[in-house]
Amino acid sequence: MTGNPADRAGAILEVDLAGIAANWRLLARRVEPVECAAVVKADAYGLGAALVAPALAAAGCRRFFVATMDEGIALRRVLPEAAEIAVFNGLLPGCADDFIEFGLVPVLNDPGQVADWRSAALRHRKGPAILHLDTGMARLGLTLREFDRLADASCRPDPIRWRALISHLACSDEPEHPLNRTQLERFIAARRCLSHVPASLAASSGIFLGPEFHFDLVRPGAALYGVNPQPGCPNPMRQIVRLKGRILQIREVDRGQSVGYGASHVMAAPGRLATVAVGYADGWLRSVSQHGSGRVGGKRVPLLGRVSMDLMVFDVSGVDPAFVRPGGFIELLHEEYGVDAAAADAGTIGYEILTALGRRYLRTYSGAPRQC
Amino acid sequence: MTGNPADRAGAILEVDLAGIAANWRLLARRVEPVECAAVVKADAYGLGAALVAPALAAAGCRRFFVATMDEGIALRRVLPEAAEIAVFNGLLPGCADDFIEFGLVPVLNDPGQVADWRSAALRHRKGPAILHLDTGMARLGLTLREFDRLADASCRPDPIRWRALISHLACSDEPEHPLNRTQLERFIAARRCLSHVPASLAASSGIFLGPEFHFDLVRPGAALYGVNPQPGCPNPMRQIVRLKGRILQIREVDRGQSVGYGASHVMAAPGRLATVAVGYADGWLRSVSQHGSGRVGGKRVPLLGRVSMDLMVFDVSGVDPAFVRPGGFIELLHEEYGVDAAAADAGTIGYEILTALGRRYLRTYSGAPRQC
Repeated sequence: MTGNPADRAGAILEVDLAGIAANWRLLARRVEPVECAAVVKADAYGLGAALVAPALAAAGCRRFFVATMDEGIALRRVLPEAAEIAVFNGLLPGCADDFIEFGLVPVLNDPGQVADWRSAALRHRKGPAILHLDTGMARLGLTLREFDRLADASCRPDPIRWRALISHLACSDEPEHPLNRTQLERFIAARRCLSHVPASLAASSGIFLGPEFHFDLVRPGAALYGVNPQPGCPNPMRQIVRLKGRILQIREVDRGQSVGYGASHVMAAPGRLATVAVGYADGWLRSVSQHGSGRVGGKRVPLLGRVSMDLMVFDVSGVDPAFVRPGGFIELLHEEYGVDAAAADAGTIGYEILTALGRRYLRTYSGAPRQC
Repeated sequence: MTGNPADRAGAILEVDLAGIAANWRLLARRVEPVECAAVVKADAYGLGAALVAPALAAAGCRRFFVATMDEGIALRRVLPEAAEIAVFNGLLPGCADDFIEFGLVPVLNDPGQVADWRSAALRHRKGPAILHLDTGMARLGLTLREFDRLADASCRPDPIRWRALISHLACSDEPEHPLNRTQLERFIAARRCLSHVPASLAASSGIFLGPEFHFDLVRPGAALYGVNPQPGCPNPMRQIVRLKGRILQIREVDRGQSVGYGASHVMAAPGRLATVAVGYADGWLRSVSQHGSGRVGGKRVPLLGRVSMDLMVFDVSGVDPAFVRPGGFIELLHEEYGVDAAAADAGTIGYEILTALGRRYLRTYSGAPRQC
């Protein structure tokens, strides 16, 4: 078989592990002396937690957050024993012993989970956990009423070793949104009841709301992977992913030729088209149809018509044909067109561009830390 | 560890293999005596080609289509030797020998690919291939001019064993679109030049345009997996997937409480919310925000606010609390709300709902054919 998988891949996704580590260090320095964790849920936002998390550990990160217990179990295998792995989605009924077995820290989201974890902590004589207080998302976490009841009872000896008290901001990417201050005030008030426990409120965008949002621990995710934590301002983060799609075919077309499903694009002039082996089955969202673009030979080339399941068509009429040949590539994500730009064309956020990145892409990683 | 993975999965996706086989048989009977192939590209539209394709083979299907060579290689391992596996994306430069080695049939999309395959066929003394003529998509396939030149030269002995002449309809889901008849007429005219080769024009929706579109072979994909091939008419296909998301937490909220990112939903009255462990990182498209719904206790429950990366929140105020408990489920895809309904809420097509189905779902398969 063709020796190099890159020769037959329909698309190549390059992930810059050194860039992720650099982004983490940038944020860690910004919040010093507050501790900086890393959120690597959803397979490190689609980029591969098995490689991303060790690169962050090598950069100095000691606390990691995932969404599910299965993600935590997978991460346990690739991280140093000293690294703390916390699971946002909390305890499902009957899973407490598994958390202990795999050395995972549950984020406890309701009084039932706290009670279950107390029992487990008594049985196993250990039980680190994070308490999640909801201050305005109404998604996960104790209500303020539930938290008050819990805090009233907290003078009794508690078998749970509380690793942190956390909450999550709903509008941190909109600095002027009044809910930011409301959530901050609720969190400060609640924290007084558990003042001996490290507190954490800010994720990526929250870090940029200012030091009063930092408390003892910040938890960036998206910013590590190049999403701008301050929409509308210059992006301080490095772009982490480059994606290039394979050109399968070049064709000359006449004026009036329709392109793709629904014949939704009609050529206003004769032109040259390049068909690329990336489609919405690769997570290149179909909502980018008619808006997207690529780059080849240094020039922007517009996406024509609808994204197909496995294919897209670009207008390469304006590009020197020497740069556009079957087997070559069109760049889909690059330093001038990052995940936020793609998100704008798709009507979504950079986070979804990342987590949708496809299974058929050949993934290559650069900048992995040296093995000790 | 908890014995049953279903106890800790954030969501469970049930795939009905018997239903896929039944859908294939329905279409095969409809087109008799024309042959019916199956399109299993993009991992059988996200459902798992390694299980779906053998189920179709057991139902009688003998010809399969994938998008990429890698998909073809993977399929070769699970299908009987007699099954034909064709690769839509065609020959990449330098890959001809791999097609021969793995017994794959390339769909040849341009004159360069035809020339490359002729050389390979001479070298290996075999060389089955499918010729793809573009009749109006401008995506893959020979132009009419290229096809005419090829047909003129076809009186010479040809080492390629042509398995089919195919084309693809751009607007087959819109029966009244004039491009359907234009493409049909172009295909009929071209076919005269290669009258000894089986011809194929129709995919799922094309089958329902009538017998004149059937020729010698039809190639359904989406309809096998429950997508309605005739949008706007009753769906003749069985629903194939059921998806249920785990309830992580129930909360009582007051009037005025905002829900989720951006505080985009505000409760008009007190209510009860259920947070479910499915988000856009699971391919539950973020564009469904504010439109989607689930079902629990037999009742429709609206999605509130924005879909998060790993979570969604539903308003379960109207449901008997006995049906809604942490660890239980909310149905996201079911017999009354299939992939087309979800697509309508997400502003896309059922195809994308299928191919986006998430990696974190626990997948269960029913109705697998008995091993001989």
